[in-house]
Amino acid sequence: MERSELKALLEQVRTGAISADEAVDQIGEEPLVELGYATPDLHRGIRQGVSEVIYGAGKTAAQIAGISEALLAHGQGRILITRLGQEKAEAVRGLLPEGSGFRYEETARMGIIGSAPEPDGVGVVLVLAAGTSDLYCAEEAAITAEMLGSQVKRIYDVGVAGIHRLLAHTDDIQHATAIVAVAGMEGALASVVGGLAPCPVIAVPTSVGYGASFGGVTALLSMLNSCASGVSVVNIDNGFGAGYQANLINHVGK
Amino acid sequence: MERSELKALLEQVRTGAISADEAVDQIGEEPLVELGYATPDLHRGIRQGVSEVIYGAGKTAAQIAGISEALLAHGQGRILITRLGQEKAEAVRGLLPEGSGFRYEETARMGIIGSAPEPDGVGVVLVLAAGTSDLYCAEEAAITAEMLGSQVKRIYDVGVAGIHRLLAHTDDIQHATAIVAVAGMEGALASVVGGLAPCPVIAVPTSVGYGASFGGVTALLSMLNSCASGVSVVNIDNGFGAGYQANLINHVGK
Amino acid sequence: MERSELKALLEQVRTGAISADEAVDQIGEEPLVELGYATPDLHRGIRQGVSEVIYGAGKTAAQIAGISEALLAHGQGRILITRLGQEKAEAVRGLLPEGSGFRYEETARMGIIGSAPEPDGVGVVLVLAAGTSDLYCAEEAAITAEMLGSQVKRIYDVGVAGIHRLLAHTDDIQHATAIVAVAGMEGALASVVGGLAPCPVIAVPTSVGYGASFGGVTALLSMLNSCASGVSVVNIDNGFGAGYQANLINHVGK
Amino acid sequence: MERSELKALLEQVRTGAISADEAVDQIGEEPLVELGYATPDLHRGIRQGVSEVIYGAGKTAAQIAGISEALLAHGQGRILITRLGQEKAEAVRGLLPEGSGFRYEETARMGIIGSAPEPDGVGVVLVLAAGTSDLYCAEEAAITAEMLGSQVKRIYDVGVAGIHRLLAHTDDIQHATAIVAVAGMEGALASVVGGLAPCPVIAVPTSVGYGASFGGVTALLSMLNSCASGVSVVNIDNGFGAGYQANLINHVGK
Amino acid sequence: MERSELKALLEQVRTGAISADEAVDQIGEEPLVELGYATPDLHRGIRQGVSEVIYGAGKTAAQIAGISEALLAHGQGRILITRLGQEKAEAVRGLLPEGSGFRYEETARMGIIGSAPEPDGVGVVLVLAAGTSDLYCAEEAAITAEMLGSQVKRIYDVGVAGIHRLLAHTDDIQHATAIVAVAGMEGALASVVGGLAPCPVIAVPTSVGYGASFGGVTALLSMLNSCASGVSVVNIDNGFGAGYQANLINHVGK
Amino acid sequence: MERSELKALLEQVRTGAISADEAVDQIGEEPLVELGYATPDLHRGIRQGVSEVIYGAGKTAAQIAGISEALLAHGQGRILITRLGQEKAEAVRGLLPEGSGFRYEETARMGIIGSAPEPDGVGVVLVLAAGTSDLYCAEEAAITAEMLGSQVKRIYDVGVAGIHRLLAHTDDIQHATAIVAVAGMEGALASVVGGLAPCPVIAVPTSVGYGASFGGVTALLSMLNSCASGVSVVNIDNGFGAGYQANLINHVGK
Amino acid sequence: MERSELKALLEQVRTGAISADEAVDQIGEEPLVELGYATPDLHRGIRQGVSEVIYGAGKTAAQIAGISEALLAHGQGRILITRLGQEKAEAVRGLLPEGSGFRYEETARMGIIGSAPEPDGVGVVLVLAAGTSDLYCAEEAAITAEMLGSQVKRIYDVGVAGIHRLLAHTDDIQHATAIVAVAGMEGALASVVGGLAPCPVIAVPTSVGYGASFGGVTALLSMLNSCASGVSVVNIDNGFGAGYQANLINHVGK
Amino acid sequence: MERSELKALLEQVRTGAISADEAVDQIGEEPLVELGYATPDLHRGIRQGVSEVIYGAGKTAAQIAGISEALLAHGQGRILITRLGQEKAEAVRGLLPEGSGFRYEETARMGIIGSAPEPDGVGVVLVLAAGTSDLYCAEEAAITAEMLGSQVKRIYDVGVAGIHRLLAHTDDIQHATAIVAVAGMEGALASVVGGLAPCPVIAVPTSVGYGASFGGVTALLSMLNSCASGVSVVNIDNGFGAGYQANLINHVGK
Repeated sequence: MERSELKALLEQVRTGAISADEAVDQIGEEPLVELGYATPDLHRGIRQGVSEVIYGAGKTAAQIAGISEALLAHGQGRILITRLGQEKAEAVRGLLPEGSGFRYEETARMGIIGSAPEPDGVGVVLVLAAGTSDLYCAEEAAITAEMLGSQVKRIYDVGVAGIHRLLAHTDDIQHATAIVAVAGMEGALASVVGGLAPCPVIAVPTSVGYGASFGGVTALLSMLNSCASGVSVVNIDNGFGAGYQANLINHVGK
Repeated sequence: MERSELKALLEQVRTGAISADEAVDQIGEEPLVELGYATPDLHRGIRQGVSEVIYGAGKTAAQIAGISEALLAHGQGRILITRLGQEKAEAVRGLLPEGSGFRYEETARMGIIGSAPEPDGVGVVLVLAAGTSDLYCAEEAAITAEMLGSQVKRIYDVGVAGIHRLLAHTDDIQHATAIVAVAGMEGALASVVGGLAPCPVIAVPTSVGYGASFGGVTALLSMLNSCASGVSVVNIDNGFGAGYQANLINHVGK
Repeated sequence: MERSELKALLEQVRTGAISADEAVDQIGEEPLVELGYATPDLHRGIRQGVSEVIYGAGKTAAQIAGISEALLAHGQGRILITRLGQEKAEAVRGLLPEGSGFRYEETARMGIIGSAPEPDGVGVVLVLAAGTSDLYCAEEAAITAEMLGSQVKRIYDVGVAGIHRLLAHTDDIQHATAIVAVAGMEGALASVVGGLAPCPVIAVPTSVGYGASFGGVTALLSMLNSCASGVSVVNIDNGFGAGYQANLINHVGK
Repeated sequence: MERSELKALLEQVRTGAISADEAVDQIGEEPLVELGYATPDLHRGIRQGVSEVIYGAGKTAAQIAGISEALLAHGQGRILITRLGQEKAEAVRGLLPEGSGFRYEETARMGIIGSAPEPDGVGVVLVLAAGTSDLYCAEEAAITAEMLGSQVKRIYDVGVAGIHRLLAHTDDIQHATAIVAVAGMEGALASVVGGLAPCPVIAVPTSVGYGASFGGVTALLSMLNSCASGVSVVNIDNGFGAGYQANLINHVGK
Repeated sequence: MERSELKALLEQVRTGAISADEAVDQIGEEPLVELGYATPDLHRGIRQGVSEVIYGAGKTAAQIAGISEALLAHGQGRILITRLGQEKAEAVRGLLPEGSGFRYEETARMGIIGSAPEPDGVGVVLVLAAGTSDLYCAEEAAITAEMLGSQVKRIYDVGVAGIHRLLAHTDDIQHATAIVAVAGMEGALASVVGGLAPCPVIAVPTSVGYGASFGGVTALLSMLNSCASGVSVVNIDNGFGAGYQANLINHVGK
Repeated sequence: MERSELKALLEQVRTGAISADEAVDQIGEEPLVELGYATPDLHRGIRQGVSEVIYGAGKTAAQIAGISEALLAHGQGRILITRLGQEKAEAVRGLLPEGSGFRYEETARMGIIGSAPEPDGVGVVLVLAAGTSDLYCAEEAAITAEMLGSQVKRIYDVGVAGIHRLLAHTDDIQHATAIVAVAGMEGALASVVGGLAPCPVIAVPTSVGYGASFGGVTALLSMLNSCASGVSVVNIDNGFGAGYQANLINHVGK
Repeated sequence: MERSELKALLEQVRTGAISADEAVDQIGEEPLVELGYATPDLHRGIRQGVSEVIYGAGKTAAQIAGISEALLAHGQGRILITRLGQEKAEAVRGLLPEGSGFRYEETARMGIIGSAPEPDGVGVVLVLAAGTSDLYCAEEAAITAEMLGSQVKRIYDVGVAGIHRLLAHTDDIQHATAIVAVAGMEGALASVVGGLAPCPVIAVPTSVGYGASFGGVTALLSMLNSCASGVSVVNIDNGFGAGYQANLINHVGK
Repeated sequence: MERSELKALLEQVRTGAISADEAVDQIGEEPLVELGYATPDLHRGIRQGVSEVIYGAGKTAAQIAGISEALLAHGQGRILITRLGQEKAEAVRGLLPEGSGFRYEETARMGIIGSAPEPDGVGVVLVLAAGTSDLYCAEEAAITAEMLGSQVKRIYDVGVAGIHRLLAHTDDIQHATAIVAVAGMEGALASVVGGLAPCPVIAVPTSVGYGASFGGVTALLSMLNSCASGVSVVNIDNGFGAGYQANLINHVGK
């Protein structure tokens, strides 16, 4: 409840339009749907300007479908479901009502209801991936930013071991509004891009690698210690978080 | 060298204004000052829109003063020196020429030459600190953002153990353009703020704590795993990096 | 053997009712059933006021059934088996005698013999879970506390990213006798609840999360470093331990 | 602000005793003292039933004295300052007004204003320490519990390498209301005590040890993995937290 | 080649019995069977007084059978194969010649050729296990010591959470020649036994546990930091190593 | 583009043979094949003197075949594919055109197109493996060095627990040009070899071991801390990298 | 109290020589001196056959002197104080009565009261150290074993990087009763010695090294993963523990 | 002792020039100086082609001077002492005889006796450092390679955040015989150089950085996971080891 709403409510009490008891109830009323196993937050759109996203891992298909339906019932037309395996996605599809418009993005492991809005950001979100193996994460970032209203450009397989592959895209790097840099192994892409880009860089370590890459920890640490300024980092494999953050940056002042 | 400059140069070759040999030399010429122990990058301002910052740790006072003088000599009027202990700061002050305008910010451990520019960002950078012990890092972030051209608002000692202290500032959180959330111990501030804010949140873990805080590692991990979307993270105690990133966000579209 | 029992025994020796040799044997006699592969402790109820619980992981169905039968044969009417997978549970059911009253709680992965006693605690044990994915652990805590004699209230999916979902339950938090706070990812729930609650809070980190959550380590560290007082922590996913501890607290003075 | 207070306030609006604007301000008013560097929480006593405690590490003597004075000025007669080195303690003493009653507990590294209240708990808090080197932490726990209103019994140097030293105190262990078990090295004390005690055991790992004790991490892990039920754990060297939790347990139902 | 053998050889050279070239060849000759994929060491019995043991993990059934045959062909009548899964064991059995006398110990996951020798040690090797889940490792230790010539006594499920279960066996602990203490979780058994036993204690951490037991690391660290003297430690789950070491101790002076 | 090529290009501009615009385009042109999911680097042969190697893990069979075909189409006759499981290898074989000459090395998990060149190195690359279980990694190193033009000698199962097995090969160690030392468990082979060899030693830790070998981390750390000079280390299980580096060393001055 | 003593006591009760109450008191009486800060265990000699050793770290000089005096007063003529810095040693010397016979071993950082007994072990304890920097730890092991009754032979600076230095002592290794192998860095000494020795080897990792030696962790892990059988390990820098264990082994059957 | 020497010796036995006993003694005689605290290896020059280097850390000035004198007395004219602090260096200088020619390199923390030899390697060893703070380690590498007979070129402060600073030196990178790449923080320099260089690259992580750089661990991990082939790694801050290895590579075939 916004401060302005609170004041309006209190005015109603003052004029006797509602009783104090009713006001207490309303102040206490939570904008939530209680499903038992989950409490979808219907006000997040108002509070944060972005709609609810469902984290698919650790939820059953029935729970995901149930939450989706509750959100659809309350008028939310666009839903993202992240970390959704193919098999569970098919189960969710089967549980949703006909015509839900559910579709599945395999590389990004995302379920989507609704289409992407017209891009209305400041400029372009650039998604860079170091290697072919990092695409699952780069696509998660790219699709997230698109679904939230950004124009996205993808440039993949531009790791620093062949630095000229990256330098060939200096123009795109110089003119992006926000950059998502996705890399596994030693994650050096973030530092080189951070040194070339005049815009914020969101680095995403991936779990690609073996041995002392420790499932992405090396890339994570490398990115956190980037010698370039202007680089911040999200969790390992968190393409969603990076795309979300990049989209927020791309809407600054909007 | 920008692509436009390269083309102009080639035109000069075509018209015979300069020889091919001269052009090769110019293309190869690096916009760097070679000091032996360091290679200050005079083109960073052009390339990234922000001036050179000197990382003070691990450099001698003589090296810091030397780099500063080289930068001043090439016309850079505003210099930040981070991670500068008080004693070394005094030594730097003594080595710089009279009237250099060097000043020292003790809490933030920063040396500064030149004054902050007029703020010209989109809105306000909000710097939140969980506890009194986190101020050294929060101030580093705040001063960095100010020196780079942002208006900054500071709210300190609003850790989540007394959640109402934080909720009292919901308005500021709702209206910031970028938020820097500084916290040690378990770093939970980032998640709560991330859930309240509609703008990007840059989380800074501090090394405040003891025992299993592992010098900031717990806060770092906690922030990377934030259940709130829109949170990205920088290195432990990296207030500078957070302030730098927040300022970039605050200048999107500018 | 209690000190009073020892004294009584010695009196019997003094009066010649039993010989010294017999006394030595009795003093040495252990209140244990020797099964070869296990040594169930029949006196734990006397010594600690709570009946034996069987840790199901790493035991075969035959061993679990064997221990259960030994306990039933010695008059213990209520048995908890934790960390019991569904398949093994069915095997245990098949090995137990008809009418053992064995039932299986799927979400909590617990096997249960006997029904919950009438709650006789001081007040209410409140079990809070941050997300839908944490339910397996929260239910283990809740059922444990119920089976040991506590009234339990469950509130689920109240993670701090939507802080108002939690604040809507401030009354329950203020009036609980003990709180179990279950969360994965960054585990910030414990700190916020710890700041709101006047009673002891037992925090349970879950292995929910990915990447740098390290199977619950981040939540564990976060909870151990809680900036709120009055929070103690149990092992990752140890809902049983938290429920056990909360029930003990709920019976203080009883 | 409690729900009952909110309702009373709203009644005042209804009767016109105060305006809606005033009510909004009161609802928003935080029960905090704004000191710039800190925001002491004056309502914690009301909210959690325990007064504010000052975490001394990372604060200057001036900040500690300032916060103390603010608390004294608002009527709080009893203040604990933890993690306070001797030198800083003397500086705090010098900055506080005459007659503040400040005293310093050297072993526990605590500053104290005011005397301990009459014990009003359910029973006795038992503080056990494994070795002579663990006393700094055990005393922090014991004094904290005493200052918060518990009767405390101390038994020190009863590590498990000489198990009979511990077993000699079985009576005390059987009859305590809450036990704080303090140990470094391998921290096995918690498991043995956990198996003997019918009450909640709060285990405190200390940083005592060398080599692979990793500053208390081994004891911490050991305690978290205790094979005994009814043991929960606080951060390494967090005697304060354990004493605080034990005192809460000792006041259940009060 | 022993020093005495070298001297004899040189005498033969001096007397012309063999040429210098032949001597060089003999000195260089290695007492090994070259199988290509492996180099069984036929002199280990001479050098270390114990026969070759085959580490089964990471070897194919064909390789294990091949090495076994080579050893049998060179007169070694007793072979231990550790870390041998049931399926691979059956394959090995099929590849060995009829009448090899191969048998499989399922709990200990060991393949054995030949029968245990008459015990000829100083006394008894005592193998203690904390829980039912630790038996796989305890049995590996016990069988190893038996196969190498020790009398072994097993006492299982005597973890410290029920300390009286362990104390009931104080006599055995007091009179053993060497003790193997096997435990997972927090591994406290080693410290308590170390404090009771007058003989060397070899502690074996097992991978039994969950969460912060980290696959046996907690037990390992706990045992390394044992506050009791006279405890040394082997790798996680290395029952073989502990049994081997205990048997060596049991043959001191023999 | 080499500096000499750049100068030639500029001369063409000067003489009007090409326009400035065309020159800009050529300077910017990257010697890459854009496949969408990958960007094979056709100039690596020129830049580094070695042909492209395909890292097979994390790529689909279709991607691997596609990259291979692109390389073959651009005239590269010899291709290595590392970390290629058997099943995927068969799929790749099926996707490649008839007569591609693809073959699969099972132990080394490598796919190979083309035959090894005539060895043209300075001397011999010696590949040592500590145990039978390390062969997968040793073979990867050996085949890599052979395919890149080195003569390779293999000596396997010469771990330090039977030091005479290793010392029997002192001659080979003394006369190698480069040595690859492959070992798991405690990785001590590298130190002993490093003390015997007058040439560079590349140590490869393998993931062979259990418990506190942590998947090769112990061997890695051990090798990095080798008390012998002249030892450098590659990632866990990175036989390819070691063979590659050894081959480079074997071609110094060539 | 031994079982035989218990029986004798009970006989006295039976005959009326003492009352039941007196017997209860005697059974409960602990063989401990209560010093407040410590509880020296006077029966350890009886129970474990070795006298009390004082762990000097974390104890004040006054506490060490107090415990020493208590032990001397109860007739213990030989006391070891480990981890005793030079300065604290002088303070202890000053606090002990004249003629206490206290002496200080600087390299081993040990305080000693009383002289070493006549060696009465089975054979010789061999102490090997890899480098000059490891002497502090090797000496602690050697002196401990000597003070407890073993003949000790020291061989230092025989690290594996110069393997012939170690092989020169093969005879000593072959004929020792127990070996203590002390090494830092990669700790490979333990594995090579373990492969050469027919007796138990106690490995002691030292904190000697830098970078990725992690204060001894690398050596510790290396030793735990030794590919040689018959090696067990103690804590980093725990020369005392190794010497203690080696002495126990050297007295097997005595 | 080489194989050829052994044969010659045996011939002498055969001809009666020496007795078998004398031969045994000679074969057994170690080419070592026994100093008690150290065993300098006088044959390393013969065995490995490089003279003894003294690791200065953990040795006293007296020990260092003693070993140096022993080496000088046996004719070694060139000695390197690594990890030698300034104060200890002065003490060593004072202990050495007049005219020893000892000099101290402050940045590299090395003591040196004798002058560098004429470079006789294949080409040039290139030493690259990422930042000014890494010079201590880069200089250690450079001086080591020079003292062992290599021509060295240094290029410093060429970190990847300003990639053009590094690319300006592409020629040197293309034409080096071996490259030492020194970097702290995220260590990305190694990957970029590894992608540009046709020669072996030895990467040295430095302990430069803060927070999650963990004293060089991040740079170490990053370098081990380099996506470029041809990169191997030495321990953190081990400039000596890298210079040693680079020099070996630079002498391949010599």
